[in-house]
Amino acid sequence: MKKLTVSASKTYDILIGENLLSKAGHYIKTVSAAAKVCVVTDSTVDALYSKTVVDSLIQDGFDVVKFVFNQGEKQKSHSTLLELYEFLCYNGITRTDLLVALGGGVTGDLTGFAAATYLRGVDFVQIPTTLLAQVDSSVGGKTGVNIDGGKNLVGAFNQPLLVICDTNVLDTLSEDIFADGMGEVIKYGMIRSASLFEMLKTGGIRENKALLKEVIYQCVSIKRDVVQNDELDTGERMILNFGHTLGHAIEKHYNFSGISHGKAVAVGMCMISELAEKKEMIDKGVSQQLMACLLANKLPVSVQIPIESLYKFCLNDKKRTSSNIRFILCPQIGVSKIFTMTIDEFVSFILD
Amino acid sequence: MKKLTVSASKTYDILIGENLLSKAGHYIKTVSAAAKVCVVTDSTVDALYSKTVVDSLIQDGFDVVKFVFNQGEKQKSHSTLLELYEFLCYNGITRTDLLVALGGGVTGDLTGFAAATYLRGVDFVQIPTTLLAQVDSSVGGKTGVNIDGGKNLVGAFNQPLLVICDTNVLDTLSEDIFADGMGEVIKYGMIRSASLFEMLKTGGIRENKALLKEVIYQCVSIKRDVVQNDELDTGERMILNFGHTLGHAIEKHYNFSGISHGKAVAVGMCMISELAEKKEMIDKGVSQQLMACLLANKLPVSVQIPIESLYKFCLNDKKRTSSNIRFILCPQIGVSKIFTMTIDEFVSFILD
Repeated sequence: MKKLTVSASKTYDILIGENLLSKAGHYIKTVSAAAKVCVVTDSTVDALYSKTVVDSLIQDGFDVVKFVFNQGEKQKSHSTLLELYEFLCYNGITRTDLLVALGGGVTGDLTGFAAATYLRGVDFVQIPTTLLAQVDSSVGGKTGVNIDGGKNLVGAFNQPLLVICDTNVLDTLSEDIFADGMGEVIKYGMIRSASLFEMLKTGGIRENKALLKEVIYQCVSIKRDVVQNDELDTGERMILNFGHTLGHAIEKHYNFSGISHGKAVAVGMCMISELAEKKEMIDKGVSQQLMACLLANKLPVSVQIPIESLYKFCLNDKKRTSSNIRFILCPQIGVSKIFTMTIDEFVSFILD
Repeated sequence: MKKLTVSASKTYDILIGENLLSKAGHYIKTVSAAAKVCVVTDSTVDALYSKTVVDSLIQDGFDVVKFVFNQGEKQKSHSTLLELYEFLCYNGITRTDLLVALGGGVTGDLTGFAAATYLRGVDFVQIPTTLLAQVDSSVGGKTGVNIDGGKNLVGAFNQPLLVICDTNVLDTLSEDIFADGMGEVIKYGMIRSASLFEMLKTGGIRENKALLKEVIYQCVSIKRDVVQNDELDTGERMILNFGHTLGHAIEKHYNFSGISHGKAVAVGMCMISELAEKKEMIDKGVSQQLMACLLANKLPVSVQIPIESLYKFCLNDKKRTSSNIRFILCPQIGVSKIFTMTIDEFVSFILD
């Protein structure tokens, strides 16, 4: 088992290894004095893994209740959130109890936000079960839900008490969902590590277990460093948003149901890099290498949406200030830079 | 004008004085670089004061939008909150912009929670317009909304950037709403200051402008001290909850619409003090003095609800842990103490 420690507003560990689910109760017991635990999970993950986790928690003396919601990004809503609040209330979860998010990004974001706001804050633990959640959303404390106006527009910074990444659970992911996670994995290579990017270039990560564990460790390690430097996302942390300005716009265009997050980010990285390369703002050949790597990892590099329909969704990006918009470019593989433009400059960058 | 500075996770000023509303823009300009301001207010306050505040903000160069919701505790809900989020989104309020809560406790709690969670956090300023909000809810950063399961069960600790208490606005309060605020004022005397309690004993605070301003200052000053010592409400801050365990239960019994908060707290203080006096847990005569003071300030000292119907609502009080419940008693006027009981002990304390 590998361990990484995050020193943010809370200090907590991220455990990465095999067969950790069946010892979840043991690891949680070392960090929490809760009497009662509410496991929050979606219908898909419930069928696969919640019994293992619940049994382990009971074995370690926790009183356990379980909240299951329907799988899907559409569920990352106030409607599910309100059901969860009432469930917690009805089951007598108090301030000293604990929530456990068992699942992908939707589960982690929703549970983390519920934990930030129920009774003005209860502790929570992340047990991410998708590649995307293990390398990205479970680490760093960004939690939230979608509203009609956009993705993640309501949320809180709320660090977990512990993150448990069991690499075995990735075995049951569909090829599609695994590929989705590779979108964010490749992003880490692009923004911070040419050597990580090198490992990913030829694809086949899933088939090489040792390599997969190393890749997850490297991604989490990059995220940890970035989050420690800028927990509240006012500076450096923005580099994690490479590909996300257009990626979010693509997700929004499809009303959060036509394309998965990692794939939208993959396309977002390509689009912004191609635009920037045409304008000589990044090195020649970067977008070509990025596209080849994405394709080798079964990811899309374009969508059938005219850019004119997309850019307006960028304008209510969270990274906007009153007059400016900020976005990320990678001048070279492994190097990232924050760019600030006025809204007008951004519009002509996108459209001209 | 009097000024108090709160040094919590944020450091901010509370201004107390006359005719501050018309200079709101000026004071806000000194603490915020926002381009856009969203004033949040209810239908009652909107008609009385929002023009003064909006004009002042515009005069100081802010771009202003206004969100008005129907007056009442029922509006402190996710339904109003979602409307507010969408309004902010639609009007392009960004992370560097500002919300201004202009109104009573409902407005302040709702706006503060929206500010804590919209885009994972934007700044906000409190302009409390009721006595209750000026002495209590606008100071200390507790924000939140009600859910079916209970009052304020969802929320966040979120300190404002500034609090502006214009004592002139209290002139337009009905006798009833003014009395409501006196419930919390008397609580401050009970928990921390025999000399403040002495000032209140004969009533007539409203008629004496200089005394009223001094009373507000003293209350805010007590709250400031308590909040600075225990911002996140894990210890001393609980003394502010004197009368609230039963008070909240009374409000809940009436489904948040049959009795105002300050009156429920007044009755809650009496009930718990009478129970405790009967069991010789507090000095003899304390509940008698408390009742006399409440009556002199036009507040109720009892309700027509049997205690058997109330105690069950106490059991999902936020102050509960898995096995214990905590509540406050005042052994003497001006002195408060936190008591912890098991659920069973509490039930027999209440019912026997």
